Amino acid sequence: MLNEKIALHTPGPTPIPPQVSAAMTQPMINHRGEGFSRLYRDITAKLQTVFQTKEQVYVLAGSGSAGWETAMVNFVPAGAKVLNIVIGDFGERWVKANRALGYQVERLDYAIGTASRPEDVDTFLSKQEGAIQAVCLQHNETSTGVSNPVHEIAQVVAKHGALVLVDAVSSLGALPLPMDEWGLDVVFTGSQKALMCPPGLMMIAASQKAWARAEKANAPRFFFDLKGHRDGFAKGQTPQTPAISLLYGLQAALQMVLEEGIEQGQERHRLMGEMARAGAQATGLELLCQDEGFASNTVTAVKIPQGVEASTFRKAAQKSFGVVLAGGQGKIMKDMIFRIGHMGYVTPNDVLVALAAVENSLALLGYPVQVGNAVAAAQRVWLLQVSANK
Amino acid sequence: MLNEKIALHTPGPTPIPPQVSAAMTQPMINHRGEGFSRLYRDITAKLQTVFQTKEQVYVLAGSGSAGWETAMVNFVPAGAKVLNIVIGDFGERWVKANRALGYQVERLDYAIGTASRPEDVDTFLSKQEGAIQAVCLQHNETSTGVSNPVHEIAQVVAKHGALVLVDAVSSLGALPLPMDEWGLDVVFTGSQKALMCPPGLMMIAASQKAWARAEKANAPRFFFDLKGHRDGFAKGQTPQTPAISLLYGLQAALQMVLEEGIEQGQERHRLMGEMARAGAQATGLELLCQDEGFASNTVTAVKIPQGVEASTFRKAAQKSFGVVLAGGQGKIMKDMIFRIGHMGYVTPNDVLVALAAVENSLALLGYPVQVGNAVAAAQRVWLLQVSANK
Repeated sequence: MLNEKIALHTPGPTPIPPQVSAAMTQPMINHRGEGFSRLYRDITAKLQTVFQTKEQVYVLAGSGSAGWETAMVNFVPAGAKVLNIVIGDFGERWVKANRALGYQVERLDYAIGTASRPEDVDTFLSKQEGAIQAVCLQHNETSTGVSNPVHEIAQVVAKHGALVLVDAVSSLGALPLPMDEWGLDVVFTGSQKALMCPPGLMMIAASQKAWARAEKANAPRFFFDLKGHRDGFAKGQTPQTPAISLLYGLQAALQMVLEEGIEQGQERHRLMGEMARAGAQATGLELLCQDEGFASNTVTAVKIPQGVEASTFRKAAQKSFGVVLAGGQGKIMKDMIFRIGHMGYVTPNDVLVALAAVENSLALLGYPVQVGNAVAAAQRVWLLQVSANK
Repeated sequence: MLNEKIALHTPGPTPIPPQVSAAMTQPMINHRGEGFSRLYRDITAKLQTVFQTKEQVYVLAGSGSAGWETAMVNFVPAGAKVLNIVIGDFGERWVKANRALGYQVERLDYAIGTASRPEDVDTFLSKQEGAIQAVCLQHNETSTGVSNPVHEIAQVVAKHGALVLVDAVSSLGALPLPMDEWGLDVVFTGSQKALMCPPGLMMIAASQKAWARAEKANAPRFFFDLKGHRDGFAKGQTPQTPAISLLYGLQAALQMVLEEGIEQGQERHRLMGEMARAGAQATGLELLCQDEGFASNTVTAVKIPQGVEASTFRKAAQKSFGVVLAGGQGKIMKDMIFRIGHMGYVTPNDVLVALAAVENSLALLGYPVQVGNAVAAAQRVWLLQVSANK
């Protein structure tokens, strides 16, 4: 039963609530009928609250990776020069996407475990004054558990007249990201992270500034052309067939997100992040992100200690203790770290379970840990917070 | 979200697997058609494996309490003298049921937290030689977290020629109870405990010896008359309309029980019981059942420490730490104990979560506990077991 009722701690897909599963069993409807229009309007209104934007939010069938392409081809002219900020594997993948799409990619690289610095972006854009049409970055780099200072970077980018395109796949709904207030031009996310749905949907919104440039965007595009979405929206229609069951699920999930409250949800994620970091450190492990100010509250990357084999460790956690941890992405990180996802339909109790599995798995493999320290440290963080709110 | 994704640790209803929820969404069928017969035959065959009997198992719409009446009116003549063994609140309730049904009840009472002793039953039956037609007892007394030595008691009862009727509501599927091998005459259970389904079904099986006496059973009965079930079984039919969705759920649940394996499931419950007891004691709490040999592996009753108010404590566990614990049943136990259910679709990780909530709630209420001790003790029990099985 332990392997049936598995605790899924990958940083996406994340566990889905029974309310979402139940919603997805609703019967198929005609996507050109009024029933669908009502569903779509309800979802997009809710998404505006979650994106914290007055702009329209569009929902496309596709995974989070479709966000890169959609953001580029709609708002950046073909062959334009862009700056990709790379602090981990997902930054790297966006570079690949941009190159595949024919953009001229400049890049700003950071050591893994660290965040981008607004002053570097400023310096870079100053040198290339006017040449860079868009700056592409992750809000939260899932592969390293580091969050970029998006607000400060957006201010710098705006000063230089470029668009700032934000991959918020593993952050939106969990980490603060008020799109309009922070002046973000394009923000997109996926359904399978903090929004508690199965994979298969990508949601995207753009600023007026971005839409003004969309008029000149001439990159070849068909499926990811947002103009069709914009034109159809008044009628509550999508240009292509929408993923109806997933939309039912998203509607139920957004209802839960709003019932919890945007700020309360972010506070929950902050608590879980703090618990995960306190727990890992209490059992003698080192965090990949050494700067608490940029540590992700949706995923924690922890260094595998000397003498422990990464995949053996994760196998022990899953097989013996019922917890799925994520490995490192890419050659360098594969044997260097493991990751604990803590976003979406996840509570502090789930973090306790993940930490117990980390500790017990290390003990099982003969690594010297004092069993109980990790959970105790996390319990204390939680207790402190509850006591403070009392 | 903490109160959405609540950890349900009542000793029934217990959490239900998504497989069971999904199975229950299947469309309605005609209960007089071949589809239903196939469903019912599949379920009852699986139930024979779980009951460890070659006798037919019948499934009735009703809760576990319907088992008392069904066992009595079918197998014990109206007005007969019976012996009720009472070690807690459910024993008391069976007494009430028997009196309501017109039986002459003799009782053997034990202090709460203790189990019945076979020698007492022997002495009692010897004094009343031949007068007692049935001995009624709980296998597992849910209200106190104590398991009776059913095998030894059954041997004593058989010697005196009476029937032994076993309420296995909070044990069957979790604690060893081989019906035929132990010579049990009637065994019944409910769907909402170790069998991982919602409440609403009662399952019952009887020995040949019991069925032989059923011929003379003259108690008034209609809905709970098992003869109709026995007669209809050949055609795969139930005499009344069956609770079809619950049966779909039960089919899925039994499939999971068999896939895990009967012995493996019992072993999991043994581990969880041991973890719960070790955790509670490590944080300085006293168990209601002081004899480890009779401690229940499906529910642990723990004494509320001095200075802590029972309902405030349980409210803190639910509201602040997302765990539903059960209170004590009846006047005496209400303010004296709390209970941690750990049966059914529950893993050792769930026990860790329950223990963390117990400890954090006590700390929150100002009771002096060393936060982390409970989970650490439980982690060590688990780790020891995993290491031993390696």
